[in-house]
Amino acid sequence: MENVSLKTIATRLQLSTATVSKALRDSHEISAETKERVRTLASALNYVPNPYASSLRRKISKTIAVVIPEVADSFFADAINGIETIAQSKGYHVLIYLTHESVEKEKRFFSDLQSGRVDGVLLSISVETVATEHIADLQRHSIPIVIFDRVCDDIKTATVSTNDYEAGYAATKHLIENNCKKIAYLSFSARLSITAKRMQGYKQALADNNLLLPDDFVVSCSSGEENDIAAIEQLLLLENRPDGIIASVEKLTTHVYVTCQKFGLKIPQDVAVVSFANLKTAPILNPPLTTVTQPAFEMGKAAATLLFKALEKKNFNLNAEALSIPSVLHVRDSSNKTALQKIQI
Amino acid sequence: MENVSLKTIATRLQLSTATVSKALRDSHEISAETKERVRTLASALNYVPNPYASSLRRKISKTIAVVIPEVADSFFADAINGIETIAQSKGYHVLIYLTHESVEKEKRFFSDLQSGRVDGVLLSISVETVATEHIADLQRHSIPIVIFDRVCDDIKTATVSTNDYEAGYAATKHLIENNCKKIAYLSFSARLSITAKRMQGYKQALADNNLLLPDDFVVSCSSGEENDIAAIEQLLLLENRPDGIIASVEKLTTHVYVTCQKFGLKIPQDVAVVSFANLKTAPILNPPLTTVTQPAFEMGKAAATLLFKALEKKNFNLNAEALSIPSVLHVRDSSNKTALQKIQI
Repeated sequence: MENVSLKTIATRLQLSTATVSKALRDSHEISAETKERVRTLASALNYVPNPYASSLRRKISKTIAVVIPEVADSFFADAINGIETIAQSKGYHVLIYLTHESVEKEKRFFSDLQSGRVDGVLLSISVETVATEHIADLQRHSIPIVIFDRVCDDIKTATVSTNDYEAGYAATKHLIENNCKKIAYLSFSARLSITAKRMQGYKQALADNNLLLPDDFVVSCSSGEENDIAAIEQLLLLENRPDGIIASVEKLTTHVYVTCQKFGLKIPQDVAVVSFANLKTAPILNPPLTTVTQPAFEMGKAAATLLFKALEKKNFNLNAEALSIPSVLHVRDSSNKTALQKIQI
Repeated sequence: MENVSLKTIATRLQLSTATVSKALRDSHEISAETKERVRTLASALNYVPNPYASSLRRKISKTIAVVIPEVADSFFADAINGIETIAQSKGYHVLIYLTHESVEKEKRFFSDLQSGRVDGVLLSISVETVATEHIADLQRHSIPIVIFDRVCDDIKTATVSTNDYEAGYAATKHLIENNCKKIAYLSFSARLSITAKRMQGYKQALADNNLLLPDDFVVSCSSGEENDIAAIEQLLLLENRPDGIIASVEKLTTHVYVTCQKFGLKIPQDVAVVSFANLKTAPILNPPLTTVTQPAFEMGKAAATLLFKALEKKNFNLNAEALSIPSVLHVRDSSNKTALQKIQI
């Protein structure tokens, strides 16, 4: 197929390319008659504007980037769907970058994004991200950033999060009310704000109820599947074995259930379990899983909405925005033998 | 921050922008000394090349698009991870477009992609895609396309699929060997190649074993969650109720389990269940779920590998490639009471 450019149209109509370009952009400098001739030929030739050329002119890529650790997690899958609903309504493309929890990849992405490939960025930081200079660098290039879920106080911009502290507290209080006295916490990485806040809530609930927290009851699980399973096995082999477990990320659920089964431990009789998870299968697990469910779809929508406000209103102050959308505790059999409960945290 | 362009560097060094551009591209036309001066200043000013400008010149966006129906499905999440491993090793970005099963969205994406925003496309078609003119249009713009999983015979290009016919046959044969005589099939959309092939395998296995197939045993489930649940309830309320169910897509699993529970039907005693699914939680469901598991990660890798062959070798013939990577039947309690089995299909 012939590559139809502005010049092709200009040559055929004996006009300048500038005139053709202005006609296609509906400029007031061009007569209605000329516009009509240009549009008719452009349509007949199936002319498609080159987005790189128009980006150079208008500096609008009509694309936003979503930089996240992974998609194999129901939270991010649901959040992306929330982001997409807003982006599509604005006629924007969504570029999804996966860091796979590597800060080096995150830095490389942010360096690439400096060049104007996207108009704005939605970010949930990697587990390795401590220094945030690469993020500030992109902001200095006038590209707005909104951070969701995994926020970072060092970065001055809008955030959309959930009430992680209260959720950690509520999950722990719930286990205590179900007669757990020895509650362990499977941390993902204490460096991450969300894990740290959930853990603070957990610790405060223990303290408020005069429960002890042995050192080996906080288990770090972020060193790969095999190590995570080994750490969970070690926890459940302790002489002073916990009678309740809070898993701070969804993917640990399967490991906890399989390990309990392997050791002949009954859930919830021997060990009660609560997971931070958006798993659709939570109600059909054996036993059905009590979850702290994050409002993933709503968080994605809210983050994208803030980003578009920054893109559309020149003086919109992103720094002033810090949204928190509450999580929900869905009580099921893994922690409880009474009827199904749903607790707004 | 000052926007550093080629012109900034050229002005400061009293060179032409063409010279600066050539120096940065390591042209043989430029002396080693000038290259050194240009690079030193570019580095000091933190100069980033504009990708749109260089795309215009080189027609390489260093980006591939992945056009898929959704990410809230373990198959696509795993496939994206496979694609990413290849793309990142090639220094490419991955743009993910979600059609949400709408052919209108798919067409709009393909129309946008004509402009050269990406160098190549990995596609799994939407459930609504019958006519494929929008895909052929993009091929005529010399953008290579590889189709994976949800293939379409009308499109002349490379495909990466799994052995869906054999998988449907194996799932059905397995249920027959476990004493099921009345096996129903939850179809997603018979228009999709994968569903059609799985269903052909199912029908052939029934015929080979002289089992009847009542009309109401093939249930179409693609009209939204509520309708899907209603259709599954209707199936399980039939006077001639099935004693085995094959779910052709992962997301139907929860509906089947919840409906069985609602009607007091035991899995597998009353109804045996097999799902086409990549769910990580399959082993911890109540009961553990027998799955036909697709090699999602490997399919993503293979599709991306073929696409890069087309991008890197000018005369590589994509039409000649049609890979099939076999699925695996993981037998668990939902269909069987013997020990765990793993059957290569």
